[in-house]
Parts: sequence; structure tokens; C-alpha cells
Amino acid sequence: MDEFDIEVLADPDLEDPVLVEGLPGVGHVGKLAAEHLLEELDSELVRRVYSTHFPPQVSIDDRTAQLACAEFHAVTPEEGRDMLVLSGDHQAQDSEGHYGLTDAFLDVGEDFGVEEVFALGGVPTGELIEEYDVLGATTTDEFADTLEESGVVFREDEPAGGIVGVSGLLLGLGGRRDITAACLMGETSGYLVDPKSAQAVLEILQDVVGFDVDYESLEERADEMEEVVRKIQEMEQQNAPSPADEDLRYIG
Amino acid sequence: MDEFDIEVLADPDLEDPVLVEGLPGVGHVGKLAAEHLLEELDSELVRRVYSTHFPPQVSIDDRTAQLACAEFHAVTPEEGRDMLVLSGDHQAQDSEGHYGLTDAFLDVGEDFGVEEVFALGGVPTGELIEEYDVLGATTTDEFADTLEESGVVFREDEPAGGIVGVSGLLLGLGGRRDITAACLMGETSGYLVDPKSAQAVLEILQDVVGFDVDYESLEERADEMEEVVRKIQEMEQQNAPSPADEDLRYIG
Amino acid sequence: MDEFDIEVLADPDLEDPVLVEGLPGVGHVGKLAAEHLLEELDSELVRRVYSTHFPPQVSIDDRTAQLACAEFHAVTPEEGRDMLVLSGDHQAQDSEGHYGLTDAFLDVGEDFGVEEVFALGGVPTGELIEEYDVLGATTTDEFADTLEESGVVFREDEPAGGIVGVSGLLLGLGGRRDITAACLMGETSGYLVDPKSAQAVLEILQDVVGFDVDYESLEERADEMEEVVRKIQEMEQQNAPSPADEDLRYIG
Amino acid sequence: MDEFDIEVLADPDLEDPVLVEGLPGVGHVGKLAAEHLLEELDSELVRRVYSTHFPPQVSIDDRTAQLACAEFHAVTPEEGRDMLVLSGDHQAQDSEGHYGLTDAFLDVGEDFGVEEVFALGGVPTGELIEEYDVLGATTTDEFADTLEESGVVFREDEPAGGIVGVSGLLLGLGGRRDITAACLMGETSGYLVDPKSAQAVLEILQDVVGFDVDYESLEERADEMEEVVRKIQEMEQQNAPSPADEDLRYIG
Repeated sequence: MDEFDIEVLADPDLEDPVLVEGLPGVGHVGKLAAEHLLEELDSELVRRVYSTHFPPQVSIDDRTAQLACAEFHAVTPEEGRDMLVLSGDHQAQDSEGHYGLTDAFLDVGEDFGVEEVFALGGVPTGELIEEYDVLGATTTDEFADTLEESGVVFREDEPAGGIVGVSGLLLGLGGRRDITAACLMGETSGYLVDPKSAQAVLEILQDVVGFDVDYESLEERADEMEEVVRKIQEMEQQNAPSPADEDLRYIG
Repeated sequence: MDEFDIEVLADPDLEDPVLVEGLPGVGHVGKLAAEHLLEELDSELVRRVYSTHFPPQVSIDDRTAQLACAEFHAVTPEEGRDMLVLSGDHQAQDSEGHYGLTDAFLDVGEDFGVEEVFALGGVPTGELIEEYDVLGATTTDEFADTLEESGVVFREDEPAGGIVGVSGLLLGLGGRRDITAACLMGETSGYLVDPKSAQAVLEILQDVVGFDVDYESLEERADEMEEVVRKIQEMEQQNAPSPADEDLRYIG
Repeated sequence: MDEFDIEVLADPDLEDPVLVEGLPGVGHVGKLAAEHLLEELDSELVRRVYSTHFPPQVSIDDRTAQLACAEFHAVTPEEGRDMLVLSGDHQAQDSEGHYGLTDAFLDVGEDFGVEEVFALGGVPTGELIEEYDVLGATTTDEFADTLEESGVVFREDEPAGGIVGVSGLLLGLGGRRDITAACLMGETSGYLVDPKSAQAVLEILQDVVGFDVDYESLEERADEMEEVVRKIQEMEQQNAPSPADEDLRYIG
Repeated sequence: MDEFDIEVLADPDLEDPVLVEGLPGVGHVGKLAAEHLLEELDSELVRRVYSTHFPPQVSIDDRTAQLACAEFHAVTPEEGRDMLVLSGDHQAQDSEGHYGLTDAFLDVGEDFGVEEVFALGGVPTGELIEEYDVLGATTTDEFADTLEESGVVFREDEPAGGIVGVSGLLLGLGGRRDITAACLMGETSGYLVDPKSAQAVLEILQDVVGFDVDYESLEERADEMEEVVRKIQEMEQQNAPSPADEDLRYIG
């Protein structure tokens, strides 16, 4: 197998599509958001990207094995712009893999005529969130102006550590190709899978791209997570003396 | 030396052979099973595969050194189908090595006309096993049907973490080459070298492929391991207060 | 993107320029020194070097993203020789990256006609410094003679562990290209960002290369760091019993 | 710089030379032995091998920098066979580097007409040694016979873990090139730099290759190390209760 291997499964015509990326990351915000789009909207699997930089692994779905990959689905909704949704269970295992996979993802995007990319993710705040702001970063100032109108928050020099992984590189490498790209980062504690943060990100994207989805299933999942949080807090109060933040572990 | 280097030692004609892989892994189940086949049946060493992704190491056999490699033996038993048995002491050291070695292994298989692959291994349960089920995963639903008839158990979404390493990739990369492949995974505690689990896997394989081997030496080794387990359990009861699972370490 | 990718932003003519490198390292001495030059002297951004061996990361400056890179600025001061100043926020992530990036940096230098390289850095002493010596290492004995006249200190077999990273390789690989190179290493505790050490290094470089800069902002930053040290020492004395060295952590 | 880069410094004619390797390893036995040969016999530096798999590092010798490398010296002693002595301060940083460097080393050897290789090293016993046996491993049974006559000890399946690094690969890759190679491994505790073990190895090599060297400086260094051991043992007895082996750390 090649270092980066693109499998073509279908080749529908898309009209001025946007690329929406949601791979695993902080709070699984991007992954939840991308998967929610695919659950709520009709889609067609068009590409799989394999790589020797993914873990040497297959997942078992029912009885058969699927080699580690990232998947592109084409979405042509009745309302709003066409989308190419990039999702998957893996990130690259090393720095060269991150760069090479992002280039492969942008190649697929350009094949379908993509000129605009949205990388979805979470930004960890270290504390439980009440109001879910969605932070932004872009390749151009003009795009930032547009996104601010849709409610995206830009804070100077945030996130402080920059943006790591495919989401960051879609901006870095996309920008060098003159593709307009933005990262939409839902605030999230960083301790828990966070469907509410995913919803906040999708609501912004919905405003920009114009699709129409229902959030009931995300809200249900958010209720489940809140139940988990409530139980953890109860346990903390019982073990009272030091109900320290450190007791909150990542629960996925 | 090339990154992946195949040494040709013999080139016998095989008739519709199956590839049987048993490299080191959980409970050494696959390795024990493959080595048992080579002990019980006449075989000929036909290929060695070297790689810069194997440890930079030689083993010493009597007085001379053997460079780290994986070996293919051809087995042409009186009963049952011809086999190409892949065994060795090493796995690749990194992700690219796993992918590249598996491709090299499949190349060797295709040289000999292999169209069916059995990757043997163990699946850890975390507790001592009474009845050794053999779990399966395959490249096609039809092959799963066939294997179920021979007693292979398919459980939805198991193993939960997928299958890692060469065994998994033989399915993942084999499937992409239209090779029919299955992973046969004997249940095993994961704490001990497990000859009983290896025997359970071989009994399934025997039913599918049709060879005839004796299990006496595996049973003896299983008795030795049971003796080890008994002693550990005694020690646990004496140190009684907390006979925790964690006290069981991997003993190879 | 290529493994090492040089982006051309401007191509001014420089007259016999020296290359001055200041990437992150011990006490951030080299980085502080290079950045101080760029703050105090007019400069033009001429090259960016990207690499798949840098972290897969963008930094966010105001609202837009900048892909991880190292930058070359051309400085043509009124006094002293022309300079090419190499700065950035990252080192390579692995050994091959260090070698390859240093070769790319030397290529850029040679493009501009560089025949002399100064790698700026810190050398950890493990204790707080009163008098900041600047240690040297060079590619040739003659260059060492010259530098000794400007106050650079050469101590036999120091630094004992050699010089690691880009600074070291600029000498190692530069020397193999017949480029004259020196490493100027300001003594520093190794526990703190050290503007005083950066100033000591710059004062030597100023003497050799002949520019004219003001040190007020570095001195202010040094005062801030001294305030930090003072507070740490107070805390140590209060927690008195064991005011061990180990309590001093790296504070950047 | 290339991944593996051989610098030619001199090209003397050697008559049927043997390659003697002594790079850093257990007890620094091989390195001490090779360096002792170079101290006691006239030699000429003929090759340096650089690699991006060595640490990205220069060492400082007096005032100038030397890029990380391995060195070949030609030795044409009055008594005994010509030798090519391979020494250095580094091993490769990864598996591919070990393989590639060993191939480069064998290439240099073949350039000079080498048909016989001696890899010198130590084999850890975990306890202080009284009588220093020298264990052997070879590429051929005939060579093992020869070496046994010179006092090399062959023990079945020892060393149990095989031989790792360049020493092992000189046998593994050398054998594949039909070069006759042996590893001579002096027993050593594994906790200390061990000049006595180096002497034991050299005395065997002397018998096989026929040079004539004095061991006074090695013996002096051995006396120094014994003094260290004596002090450690005294300290152990004073801290008496559990004078465990674990208290002995590696002292180089």
C-alpha cells in the first residue's frame, strides 16, 4: 500500500461544495459534529483515505474487518450548499503523517472543486462550560469578518498553544494553496465527550453554510453526559474533603 | 539491505495453499499454534523476510547468528490442503513496518498462489478461561458463514478495540487485494502463554483446512501452565486479604 | 508539502552577510537574542522554511493562522555588516529533521552569499550566574583566535556533552561545506528564560559584526526575571528546611 | 547530507585486513578494546561515516566542533594482520539507522578488501566477574571451531536475548554478504565500565589476529574501577540491612 492511498468509491458532481472536517480531538467535538451531519442528512460515501501513518489496525463491524481510514461523504442537501464531510476514527501517528494526510485530504477536496474548508473541533477550557462560545481562526481576515457576523468569537492569540493536528494543518497547508479555511472550535471542558459543544459548532456552521438539521439526538446525548457529570459531582461531594478538579477524568 | 527483503530458499509447487500466520501476540496463541503445526507436520523452509523495521538484532542458535526475520514454511500434508505457515519471533517496530511487512507477506503468499489467509491469534478476556471460544473476523460475509459452521464465534463489534498488527492488516490489506482472509482468535486471559487457547484455534483450523495433528505436546505445555496458575492462586490465597486480579502478571 | 519547503518572500541583495541563528533552546538565550536584533533593527522577511519534521501545528496571530516555520529576515544596518537572521518557535521533532532543516538553512544562507555563521544559544551551568561568560566553539582554529579577541571564552572540552540541535549542526554541517561557523553560548542557569545571557551574547556579536543596538528592553525583561527569582528565593527560605536546587523549575 | 555519508580521508593499501568494531555498548567493553588498539598501535584515520540517524550533535575537541560520526582507522602492525578499526561515540538512534549504518560499515570494509569481521562487545551477567570468559557467536560453524581453539567459549543459546545493535548486525548482514564474522563478547557485570573485560576480549583477538600490544594502561584503568567497586561495597555494608544488587548502578 502507498504511504497515502485514496480509494475512489463514487464521483458525484458537487456544486461549489465546502469541506467539513471532524476527526477525533478534544471533547470529540469535531467528530460528533461531523457524524451528526451524516446521521441527519442523506449522504454518499465517495472516498476512503488509507495511510501507513494510521495505526496498523482494522475495526470489526458486525463480522467483517475495515482497515483504518478516513472517509469522505458527499452531502447534497435540499437547503444550503453542497458539502464534503470528512470523518473517521483515527489521527496520524506522527508528524509526517499529519502533514501528508492533510495534503491528501486537500487533494480530495480540490478534486471535488472545494474552495472553502471548515475544520471543526473543540478548545479545552479546563472547567465546565455554561455558555458555549465558538472560537475561530482563519486563513484570511476577510473570512474572519464573515464568520464574526455569524457569531464566531475571535480572541487575540487564542488558542494560546495554536491548533495541532489535521484541523490546524487544514488552515496552514490550505492557506498555502490559496484555499479559504477556518477552524471552528467549540469551548469544552476537555474532560468529557461534549455533544453540547458539538451542537454550538454546528449551529454556527448551519448559519454559514445553510443546511437544516435537527439536534434532538445530540441533545439526548448531552443529557446523558450531564447525568454522568451529576454523578461525578455527587461522588466528589461525598468523598468531600478535597473536591479537586483533578478528580474529573476524561470520560468518553 | 532493502527496507523489506525477501530471501528465496526453495520454490516447491503448492496446490491451492492457504496461508496460516502465527506471529507473537496476546498469550502467544498464534505463535504457539503455528509452531505446533511445524512440529507435527513435515515442512520445508521456503522464504525468509527481513526488514529494517524489525529489531536490529540477531538470535543465536547453537553457535551461529540468525538475523531477525519472519519465516515461511511450505507444508504439503497427506490429509487436507497445502499450507504456507508464517512464523517468527518479531513484530515490526513501527506503524509503517507493520503495513510494509504485511504487504511483503501477502506478496509471498500470492507467489505461491494463496487465495485464502488465516491469521491466528488470541483475544484477551482479562479472566481465566474455562471454555475456549474462538472468535472470528473476516473479509467477507460468505467466509464468515463458512467459518460459523466450523464453530467460529462472531460477536457484534468484538474485539472492541479492533485487531492490531499483522493479523489485523492481513484482513485489511488482504481484503483490498481481494484475498479472502479470516482472523481466528482464541479467547485467553491475556496474562499467560496459553497452549489451550492455541489448541482451540488449531482445532477450528483443522476442521476448515483438513490436516491431522496430534495435540499431546500442546496439552503437556498446558498442564505446565496450569501448574503455574495453581501456584499463583495458592500464593494469592495465602497473602489473602486482597486476591486481586492485578496480582496476575504475564508469565511467558 | 515537501519534507523541507523553502518559501521565497523577497530577494534583496546583501553584501557579504553573516547568518545569525537564534532558535528555541536552553534559557531561550538564542531566541531572545535573535528576536532582539529584529526588534531593534529594520528588517525584511525574506524566507520561510516549512518542514514535515516541525510539529503539525499552526499558531494564531490575531485572527489568522501561521503554519509552523522558521523565518529568515534580512537586516542591512547602517553600521556593521549585513545580516540574515534566522528565528522561529520550533525545533525539528526528530534527528533526521534536525539534519535536514540545518541543510535547508545553510542552503538559504548560501543563496544570499553567506560565508560566516553565528549560532546563538545558552549553556546551562545549573546555578544562578553572576558574571555572564560567553563560551565558544568554531569550525576552525583561526576563527577561534578572532573570537577570543572579542572576549569569547574557549574552555577545553566544554560544553562536555557537545552541542545538540540546529546550533550544533550549523557547525558540523557548515564545516563540511567549508563555511566558517561559530556557536556563541551564553552561560545561563538553565532554569529560567535569561535576557541577561542573551545580552552578553549580543554584546560579543556586536563587537564581531559591528551593529549598534540598544539593550533597554532586554534589561527590562531581565529585571522582571530577577523579580521572579527573588520571589522564588523568598518562598524557598520560608519553606526553609531543605532549600534544594531541585525546587527551581524552568520558568518561561 | 545524505542519510549515510562516507567521507574518504585516506586510502592506504591493506593486505587481507580484518575489520575490528568497538562501538559503545554494555560495559563499554568493545569501545575500550578498540580505543586501546588505537592507543597502542600506529594508525591512520581513513574514513568517517556520518548519518542522519546519529544524534544531531557535535562534540567539542579543544575549540573546534566535530560532527557525530563513526571512524575507521587503518592499522598495519609489524606483527600480525592488517586491521581496520571501527570506533566512535554513538550508536544509531533507531532501527533503520542500525541497519543502514551497518551496511555502510560493511561497504567500507569491502572497499578495503575485508573478508573477516570481529565485533567486540560485552555480555552482561548481572554479577561481578572473577574469571572473564569471552563468549562467541559467528556466521559459520567452521569459524566457531577456529575461535574455540583460541579460547572463545560457545554456550548453547547464549546470549539468550541475542545480540542487539551494530555488533549483532555485522554478523546478520555480514553473513548475508558471505563475509565471515564473529562477535567476541567479554563477560561483564553490566554495571560498570569494564577494562578487564576489554582486556580479556583483546587477548583473544590478539591470539587470532596476531598483533602485539601492552595492557598496562587498561590494567591501570581496571585498578581505578576496582577502587570504585570497593567503595560501593563498603557503603553497602554500612547501609547494611539489604545489600541488594540493585544498589549497584551503572558508573561510566
